[in-house]
Amino acid sequence: MIDIATRVWNHKWKIDPIVRSMIDTDFYKLLMCQSVFRNKPDARVTFSLINRTKDVRLAELIDEGELREHLDHIRSLSLSRGESTWLRGNTFYGKRQMFRPDFMEWFEALRLPDYHLEKRDGQYELTFEGSWPEVMLWEIPALTVLMELRGRAVLNRMEKFELQVLYARAMTKLWEKVERLRKVPALRIADFGTRRRHSFLWQDWCVQALIEGLGDTFIGTSNCLIAMRQEVEAIGTNAHELPMVYAALAETDEALAKAPYRVLEDWQEEHEGNLRIILPDTFGTKGFLKRAPHWLESWTGMRIDSGDPATGAETAIEWWKSRGEDPRKKLVIFSDGLDVEKILELHRQFEGRVRVSFGWGTLLTNDFRGLVPNDALRPFSLVCKAVSANGNPTVKLSDNPNKSMGPADEVARYKRVFGVGEQEALEVIV
Amino acid sequence: MIDIATRVWNHKWKIDPIVRSMIDTDFYKLLMCQSVFRNKPDARVTFSLINRTKDVRLAELIDEGELREHLDHIRSLSLSRGESTWLRGNTFYGKRQMFRPDFMEWFEALRLPDYHLEKRDGQYELTFEGSWPEVMLWEIPALTVLMELRGRAVLNRMEKFELQVLYARAMTKLWEKVERLRKVPALRIADFGTRRRHSFLWQDWCVQALIEGLGDTFIGTSNCLIAMRQEVEAIGTNAHELPMVYAALAETDEALAKAPYRVLEDWQEEHEGNLRIILPDTFGTKGFLKRAPHWLESWTGMRIDSGDPATGAETAIEWWKSRGEDPRKKLVIFSDGLDVEKILELHRQFEGRVRVSFGWGTLLTNDFRGLVPNDALRPFSLVCKAVSANGNPTVKLSDNPNKSMGPADEVARYKRVFGVGEQEALEVIV
Repeated sequence: MIDIATRVWNHKWKIDPIVRSMIDTDFYKLLMCQSVFRNKPDARVTFSLINRTKDVRLAELIDEGELREHLDHIRSLSLSRGESTWLRGNTFYGKRQMFRPDFMEWFEALRLPDYHLEKRDGQYELTFEGSWPEVMLWEIPALTVLMELRGRAVLNRMEKFELQVLYARAMTKLWEKVERLRKVPALRIADFGTRRRHSFLWQDWCVQALIEGLGDTFIGTSNCLIAMRQEVEAIGTNAHELPMVYAALAETDEALAKAPYRVLEDWQEEHEGNLRIILPDTFGTKGFLKRAPHWLESWTGMRIDSGDPATGAETAIEWWKSRGEDPRKKLVIFSDGLDVEKILELHRQFEGRVRVSFGWGTLLTNDFRGLVPNDALRPFSLVCKAVSANGNPTVKLSDNPNKSMGPADEVARYKRVFGVGEQEALEVIV
Repeated sequence: MIDIATRVWNHKWKIDPIVRSMIDTDFYKLLMCQSVFRNKPDARVTFSLINRTKDVRLAELIDEGELREHLDHIRSLSLSRGESTWLRGNTFYGKRQMFRPDFMEWFEALRLPDYHLEKRDGQYELTFEGSWPEVMLWEIPALTVLMELRGRAVLNRMEKFELQVLYARAMTKLWEKVERLRKVPALRIADFGTRRRHSFLWQDWCVQALIEGLGDTFIGTSNCLIAMRQEVEAIGTNAHELPMVYAALAETDEALAKAPYRVLEDWQEEHEGNLRIILPDTFGTKGFLKRAPHWLESWTGMRIDSGDPATGAETAIEWWKSRGEDPRKKLVIFSDGLDVEKILELHRQFEGRVRVSFGWGTLLTNDFRGLVPNDALRPFSLVCKAVSANGNPTVKLSDNPNKSMGPADEVARYKRVFGVGEQEALEVIV
C-alpha cells in the first residue's frame, strides 16, 4: 500500500529543502546569539563564506538558481511552536530556562536577513550583513546548504543501486569506527559535524548509530534539531566568533589586548560549570594563557581547536598546574580534524591526566572519502566567518597559520599586541 | 505522514510469511512439473530434507511451532490470477504458451500436500509424500523457509543499527562482486540462488542490483516471482530429480541403464533450443556421455553441476568433438558453487572455445560470510531431494562422491550398471 497523500505532498515541493528548521543549527550558535543579543545587539557584522579548498570549484558544481532557492527558503523559516517550547523548557547542561524570555521572544519573531551572492573565479561570494545576533545565525545553514548542494551535484549522476551501495558503504565505514570506539571504556564523544555534514538525513543517521552503538560514550550532538528529535543532549559552548568580533570592535590596542577576556567575563555572567570552557587559540594560545586573569583559572576546561592537539592539551595542563589547579579535575575538549585514530591516540595519551571529551566533526558526518570516482565527495574546508564588525576587519591568528584570517596589516598589529611569534603550519583537511 | 492502514495491516499477520506465492520457486521446477504431470503423473514420490552441514543444528536454532506455521501457510497458497496469466501468456525461452492449458488448470487448482515433521539429533526430519507432480513443488519453499528461519534466528539477537549495518555490509559485498564482473565483456550470468537465499527480499534486492549493475551480462533469474515482478527472463531447464526418479522407477538393470536417456527423450518432445540442456552427472558424466545416443549430440548444451567444473567442461568439449559437433556452437552452463573468482577463471579458460553461461547461486543470494559473530550466517548445504519413487530408493552418484545419495547396495548396483569407477571427492560448500 502506497501512501498516496505523501506522494502528492512531495510533488508539491518546488525544491527539496536542505534546511527546514531554525534550530537545524549548532547549539553554541544559540548560546552565543543570546550572549550577543544581550551584550552587543547593535554591532554591525558581516559574515562571509570562505572556501579554503580552492580546487573544489563550487560555482561550477552548484547551480546559482538552485542555491538561491535554498537560501530564500531559509529566509522563509521561523521558529516553530514545538521548537520554541523545547528551547524554553528543556534542560541544557543541567540548567532549566537556559534561554531567557526576552531572547526567546526575539528569536520567535526572527527571520534571517538578506544575503548577497556573486560568482567569482569559480567560487561563490556569499555574504550576510546586518546586526550581529541576526547575521550570525546564517553561518550554519549557509554551510550546510553549500555542502549538501555540492554532494547532490555528485549524486545526481548516480543510478539507484549505485546510490544505495554508496550509502551502504558509508554506513559500513561509520559502523567500523563505532566498533573500534565502543571497545574503549571511559571515552566521551559528541557529534560536532553539523556544519560540514553530507546531509541532514545522514547526520541524523550517524547520531542514531552512535546512540545505539556507543551507549554512554556518546554524550550528545551540537545539532539542536537532532538533539530534540532523538532526545539526546545538545552540546556546545562558544566559538572564535566572539573574541574576533569583540577584538574588531576594540578602539585601541589596549582594548584589543583585553577583548578576549572581556568576552569571557560576559560569558561568565550567564554560564557556569561545563559551559565555562576557554577557547584560547583565537590570537595564539600561549600569550592568551600567559596573560589570563586569575578568575579564568577556575573555569572548567579548555577547547583545543587548532595546532597540534596533544601539544595544545599539554599546554593547558601545564598552565593549570602553574596556576595551582589540579588538571585531573579539568576538562579538555578536542574538536579539530578528529577521526577514530586521533581520538584513540589522544585518549591513550591523556587518560587519567585530565578529563577529556571529543567533538567529532566532519569525519563523523561526512566521511565519504574513497567511495565515489575521483573522490568527488571528499570533505573540503568551507567556513563562514565574521569578516568585519562596525566596518573594522576581523582577525584570527589561530595556533595554525593555515587557519589565520584578516588583512596583512591587521594580522601584523594583532601579532604585536598579542605577542605571537613563529607558528607551526599544519595542513587543514576539513 | 505514516500510512496507518499499512501499519494496521501488518499487525494483522500472525506470522511474517517467508513464502507468499506459488511461483516463488525455481522456473525449472515448473518446467519439470509439467513434464512429470504429462509423463509420470501417478508416480508416488517421497521428498526429504537433508542437511549436509551437520554442525548447523537446525532443530536447536528454529522453533518447531514457527516452522509449522510457515509450512502450513505454504499449504494455504494457490496460484493467483495474475501469476496464472503471466505463466500462460509470457514468452519463456522465446516460446509463447510454454505451459499447456491442461497443466495450468491443474496448477491453478493445486494446494501443496501435507508434510511430515520430526526432530532427530538436533535436525529436522521433514518429508513430503504423494504424487510426484505435487510433492516435487515442496522442494524450493521447504528450503527457503528453513534457510530464512535460520537467518531470522541469528538476526533476532541484533539491534536496529546493527541490522542496518549488516545489510549495508552485505550490499557492499555484493556490489564489489558486481563491479568486478561488469568490467568483463561477454559474460552471461543468471541468478540461481532461490533455494539457499538469505531471504526473499534479499534475493529480490540482489536481482535488482544485477539488473542495474550488470546490464546485458545479467540474463535472468531462476525465481519466477522475481522474474515476473522485475520483468526479466525466467531461467532454468531440468535437474537430477528427473533421472533419479525415472531410474528408481526402472524395473530391470537394462531399463535402469536407459532411464537417463528416457528422461531426455520425454524432454525433447516438449522443448527445443536453449531448453535442450544435458545434465550428465547424475550417474557419472563419463559413462553417460560414452553411451549417449546420437540424437543427444544435437542438443544445445550441457550443465556442469558437480566435480571440478573445468574438467567437466573439457569433457563436454571433447565429447562434442568426438561426435563431430563444433563446441563453439554449444553452450556450457556452470552452476555448482560459483563465486566471482571461479566465474572469472572459468570465463577466461573457455572464452572462444565454447559458449558459456553461469548459474550463480548461494554465493550470490546468501553471502553473509564474515558479517556476524561466529560466522553464524555462513551458508550451509541444505537440500530437499526425491529419496524414493514407488517404494524404491533413489540414487545419485554425481561426479563428486560427497554429493552422492542412496543406500549402499543400490549405490553399488548403480555404479555397476553405469560403469562408474573411482571418483575424486571435492568439498561441498553450498
